[in-house]
Amino acid sequence: MRNATDMADQVFTEPAALRRAARGGGFLGQTSGQCPGYLQGNLVILPAADAEAFLRFCLRNPKPCPIIGVGEPGDPVLPALGAGLDVRSDLPGYRVFRDGVPGERLTDIAALWRDDFVAFVLGCSFSFEHALVRAGIPVRHIEAGGNVPMFVTALETEPAAPFGGPLVVTLRAFRPADAIRAITLSERYPIAHGAPVHIGDPAQIGITDLGRPDFGDPPVIVPGDMPVFWACGVTPQLAIRRAAPAIAITHDPGHMLVTDLIAERPT
Amino acid sequence: MRNATDMADQVFTEPAALRRAARGGGFLGQTSGQCPGYLQGNLVILPAADAEAFLRFCLRNPKPCPIIGVGEPGDPVLPALGAGLDVRSDLPGYRVFRDGVPGERLTDIAALWRDDFVAFVLGCSFSFEHALVRAGIPVRHIEAGGNVPMFVTALETEPAAPFGGPLVVTLRAFRPADAIRAITLSERYPIAHGAPVHIGDPAQIGITDLGRPDFGDPPVIVPGDMPVFWACGVTPQLAIRRAAPAIAITHDPGHMLVTDLIAERPT
Repeated sequence: MRNATDMADQVFTEPAALRRAARGGGFLGQTSGQCPGYLQGNLVILPAADAEAFLRFCLRNPKPCPIIGVGEPGDPVLPALGAGLDVRSDLPGYRVFRDGVPGERLTDIAALWRDDFVAFVLGCSFSFEHALVRAGIPVRHIEAGGNVPMFVTALETEPAAPFGGPLVVTLRAFRPADAIRAITLSERYPIAHGAPVHIGDPAQIGITDLGRPDFGDPPVIVPGDMPVFWACGVTPQLAIRRAAPAIAITHDPGHMLVTDLIAERPT
Repeated sequence: MRNATDMADQVFTEPAALRRAARGGGFLGQTSGQCPGYLQGNLVILPAADAEAFLRFCLRNPKPCPIIGVGEPGDPVLPALGAGLDVRSDLPGYRVFRDGVPGERLTDIAALWRDDFVAFVLGCSFSFEHALVRAGIPVRHIEAGGNVPMFVTALETEPAAPFGGPLVVTLRAFRPADAIRAITLSERYPIAHGAPVHIGDPAQIGITDLGRPDFGDPPVIVPGDMPVFWACGVTPQLAIRRAAPAIAITHDPGHMLVTDLIAERPT
């Protein structure tokens, strides 16, 4: 039998197969590039007492927090997103926050599950990035094999107390003609953060040094490029840190929930 | 009976009524703001010997030259664009080009009509600009009561000999968030030049001084604005100057053909 390291090189085509492997500990890798064509999502699990405010926060901030699915309180199964999908085990990695402080990394959260937990699945940028690549638009961090650069901005989310805080953005730089195509293309993927929130001068949104992102890798920017900034799924993680619920569980960055939904679904 | 000066203040609601007034010499003004909601177009009339190449030029350059309608050779009536519409008389102003050189301005071209003339109607930016205004996006030259600034760029059209030459663009400047909305909105109006061709640095497309447009008024640019450049209907006029057909007739700038088609038709 192959071990986990061998399995990490495997590219799954069926989401159910990847989730089974994650559940059994046979796949613990990042999900980028896995199950091409299927929608991947960010996971946020909160106690019901915090979930209602978080749901309002997401609805008020659809660009950083596009809702793909919400579970029933206490129910870890989300059949609308995948046959037999169990959020306690089917992701290859989890992160636990206690009082807003990021703590242990786990590969299974069954031992922590409570009958008042509510699971949220939020859209991520993968499906939009695939659409860019398919359209022949160079995505510089993908070509460089790096992670997308992310910045905490001076833009504020629309709060839903205790959730609030700054908008986090991703940066992708393009030739201007490609930037225009990336803008019009991304608008068709509202569950992948939709159209950008800013273009051009980073200082206008409080970014002082493009070379030093708050998360991810430094950007690859070619002379003449236009910087384009999209709302980022790290925004709700900062909102959770600020709200400091007694416990919250998210996916470990890059280790997403892979659903049975078709990713490339422009509206 | 009121004279032409009085009539110039009149706002027509029905395209057929405006065309009747233009035909009778009772309306000779610019058509901006006339017949709200109806599609206006640029007119180009060429001898059949030149028309086939011009049609290929338009098809190869759909952003500056979106085709709304083409007449039969020798037929000045375009029923698909309006009941009883006659391109010899129904525009408030015409310009005659001889050997590519702009010459006389006329209010009726019946005396010049030939049985080999072909009429082309091309989209203009009015319907897109109305959509911007309706979306609450400030359009600075409209607010200032001026004409949109236009620039001859270093970008070349796709030629169809003898038609070719540089792409002409219009400039509109916006706050970056509004620029993003203007880009996504304009893409839905392909017959109004569609999505922009460039954003940001004017020098990249050969514009050396934003303050000195080749046509129209100097731009109104607020600090922090993002310049956005769309393909412009003046492009085919420059192609006609370059091709220098023995005769060509266009609308006089601002004096458009008002059709019975609904303008606000996003795809």
